[in-house]
Amino acid sequence: MNADIYPTPAEEIKAWDHEADVVIAGYGIAGAAAAVEAAEAGADVLVVERTGGWGGAAAMAGGFIYLGGGTGLQKACGFDDSVDNMAAFLNVAMGPGADENRIAYYCAGSVEHFDWLVRCGVPFKPVFWGEPGWEPPADEGLMYTGGENAFPFNTIAKPAPRGHVPQMANKRAGEASAGYMLMKPLVDTATSRGVRAVYDVHATSLVIQSDGRIAGLVARQYGKSIAVRARRGVVLASGSFAYNDAMVAQYAPRIAGRPAASIEQHDGQGIRMAQAVGADLAHMDATEVAFLIDPQQTVRGILVNGRGQRYVPEDTYSGRIGQLTLYHQDDTAYLIIDGDAQDEAMAATSATPFLKRPATWVCETVAELEREIGLPAGSLQATVAAYNDAAARGEDPLLHKKSEWCKPIGTPVGAIDLRASCGGFTLGGLQTTLDAEVLHVSGDPIPGLYAAGRCIAGLAAWGYASGVSLGDGSFYGRRAGRAAAKN
Amino acid sequence: MNADIYPTPAEEIKAWDHEADVVIAGYGIAGAAAAVEAAEAGADVLVVERTGGWGGAAAMAGGFIYLGGGTGLQKACGFDDSVDNMAAFLNVAMGPGADENRIAYYCAGSVEHFDWLVRCGVPFKPVFWGEPGWEPPADEGLMYTGGENAFPFNTIAKPAPRGHVPQMANKRAGEASAGYMLMKPLVDTATSRGVRAVYDVHATSLVIQSDGRIAGLVARQYGKSIAVRARRGVVLASGSFAYNDAMVAQYAPRIAGRPAASIEQHDGQGIRMAQAVGADLAHMDATEVAFLIDPQQTVRGILVNGRGQRYVPEDTYSGRIGQLTLYHQDDTAYLIIDGDAQDEAMAATSATPFLKRPATWVCETVAELEREIGLPAGSLQATVAAYNDAAARGEDPLLHKKSEWCKPIGTPVGAIDLRASCGGFTLGGLQTTLDAEVLHVSGDPIPGLYAAGRCIAGLAAWGYASGVSLGDGSFYGRRAGRAAAKN
Repeated sequence: MNADIYPTPAEEIKAWDHEADVVIAGYGIAGAAAAVEAAEAGADVLVVERTGGWGGAAAMAGGFIYLGGGTGLQKACGFDDSVDNMAAFLNVAMGPGADENRIAYYCAGSVEHFDWLVRCGVPFKPVFWGEPGWEPPADEGLMYTGGENAFPFNTIAKPAPRGHVPQMANKRAGEASAGYMLMKPLVDTATSRGVRAVYDVHATSLVIQSDGRIAGLVARQYGKSIAVRARRGVVLASGSFAYNDAMVAQYAPRIAGRPAASIEQHDGQGIRMAQAVGADLAHMDATEVAFLIDPQQTVRGILVNGRGQRYVPEDTYSGRIGQLTLYHQDDTAYLIIDGDAQDEAMAATSATPFLKRPATWVCETVAELEREIGLPAGSLQATVAAYNDAAARGEDPLLHKKSEWCKPIGTPVGAIDLRASCGGFTLGGLQTTLDAEVLHVSGDPIPGLYAAGRCIAGLAAWGYASGVSLGDGSFYGRRAGRAAAKN
Repeated sequence: MNADIYPTPAEEIKAWDHEADVVIAGYGIAGAAAAVEAAEAGADVLVVERTGGWGGAAAMAGGFIYLGGGTGLQKACGFDDSVDNMAAFLNVAMGPGADENRIAYYCAGSVEHFDWLVRCGVPFKPVFWGEPGWEPPADEGLMYTGGENAFPFNTIAKPAPRGHVPQMANKRAGEASAGYMLMKPLVDTATSRGVRAVYDVHATSLVIQSDGRIAGLVARQYGKSIAVRARRGVVLASGSFAYNDAMVAQYAPRIAGRPAASIEQHDGQGIRMAQAVGADLAHMDATEVAFLIDPQQTVRGILVNGRGQRYVPEDTYSGRIGQLTLYHQDDTAYLIIDGDAQDEAMAATSATPFLKRPATWVCETVAELEREIGLPAGSLQATVAAYNDAAARGEDPLLHKKSEWCKPIGTPVGAIDLRASCGGFTLGGLQTTLDAEVLHVSGDPIPGLYAAGRCIAGLAAWGYASGVSLGDGSFYGRRAGRAAAKN
């Protein structure tokens, strides 16, 4: 039960504990971007943050920001990209169900958004990292993070890397994450523009006028209820519902019990507060899915499902492999990899050596391995025979793994048990306009209410690419701040 | 835009056009069941129905009601079943994400619910139909409708048929559907208990008191707005959102453009009306999926995906094949069937001869067929070779199709193109208690508001079995009527 969620009629508020033109709930990436832009637009801005400091999930993230269309970093690294090319990729990679208008708008503004981040002081090192991996191993600034250069995407749009990573002060020493190096300059910029912040303040419900306009929010601070007035607008930027067990069970049951790359504060409260005033939702079943193995291993073997069949090119984005494994293969996968390939993978440079996994089974023959795993008789043998036959020619007619990774599987042959190796965070949330206005189920915006970040249904409908959350959150967060300030 | 959806404050209603203790929106299966029980409990009941007559989607349906645990019809046909056995099946078949409590309650009450339907005058002929098919060909009363006797369900629970079909007066003459034969006695029973109904009345929004209690609804009749007072409760029984394009795009994009086995009145308005007062939702991405081919064909061939791989036992419930094809195989399937099997299938008895499809391609060899379809080189050949090898022994180690259907595929060999052959209706909707109270996002029931039928998230979370909609709608519709009457 969550009885605090009911909206409070404005006439019941006797005194406001805080007031501002624009009140932002949550000081993660969307809140920080909204704060900077609202202040730039001349608004008096107050951020209410439930934890003891700014940062949110963003500050702990790998820090990818998905940008393209020819950013300065892409050019500096020698890559061509265009707005149309980027949109062509996202329209397929973010679906089914991706919003073409939202994607088009995002792509058109992507170069300007990169420049804005740089102006705010976010550092990017113009070095491309081209090996398989979840993240660059050091402070390289650009990487493929969505399978752009893998099938089928490499037939749909010209491949370009779009994962932009802020440069870390000293990653190897663990001093700061790339996400921190994104958040710190944005918060500093906001502060320099006069943005105020109060911490340990947990927004619980909205204050609504009799005409339906949102006038502020009610929050809890140190066990006490406080009222915060928003003269122009409230921006919800309080994150996903990945840690709300009831919501996950109702909306995204397959990810239940497997939250990853999220923080416990992502409890869905922002979504609930808006639902309580009739806000609409979208894509609540969609999730990012991490696949917990090092991509340097995956690419050197073949992935098979519980029927011993291949189902995904092993050189694509690991998050895509995760989605296809969790949702389409019943969370069941085995990586078949021979001794030489496993040795190579273990020796390869990686940002995530802790995800390098030993073989669960090692056998002299594929037939024996098939029995050990418990796959249907003959299934794995047929799969490996077909793969090896084509791989000897550098081909993969079934799934189009790139030629450089096609190599027959020899002996000894091992398998890594990748059942229940998926985890992730939710992507669904409030339905908003391109100006970040929260939509009522009537289809009309709810006056005075804006939202951005992982509490909205953004670019990602079902698919995902690393960097979409921070990209979407910062881009549409800025829109939210500007729209609220002008309201 | 749908500006009529905003709740109306009760104090703004100057005069009520109609009044009753219990007001039910929608005269389909859930509305009829609610009406009978509310009237039995002593309430004055009014049904508002937007079309010119009762029936809803139910009256046009095949008419299966999913019941078990040892109903009179199951016993008369010689089948054993138990409450636990039924629940064990449903917990797996309705998931991932199925609600165990809702299923347990449904199974425990299933025999009584069957007896109640019989007492209301719904006729069942104690004859079992055991062949593959979407429906029985004549007026047989019992059938497998969820894959209970196919893998993996036949290893999870003892198979029992649970698709109960009301006997039609004269199906061959097309005089009435089984759904009509269900609805007619229920509506007659309701009428005999004093239930009133008004037609051409389209409920658009709820009337809410300042204390949050639902006091009635606002509707449109012949272009005029009318107010209907509910002294004890409103029951929403107005169907799914299968025909609301915006909602489908937001919540269940994969079924977009493919509504089937639904009616245009299923526009999601009941769900929207409740969302506008803060109601919560669940399982909005789930859909029933019809697979548009006669099961007498499917069972006699092998289904392969776009990679030439088998993925489902061909003798399971066709709706399950549809879900796995649309959601897990990118809506791509080919039925590989040889000439003899196709001849047998075309001659087999079926309720849906219009779904019998000719081969799209016919070839002398599998290699040739593989090329004609455009499958990856070698993929279909390996699949057929492996299938034939085991089928010659009456086995299917890959997918466990029952031995009686395992037969090597000979020549000439054909393929039926089953891409884009899926359609269906949405299963998600309002979150309710077992007493059919609509839950607010706070977790508390919304006072005075009840719902049942396809506007709620019922038994089916992701999976489905034919008969679950009419079963769930009638069972929890009765609960809604009783709860509203006692409120």
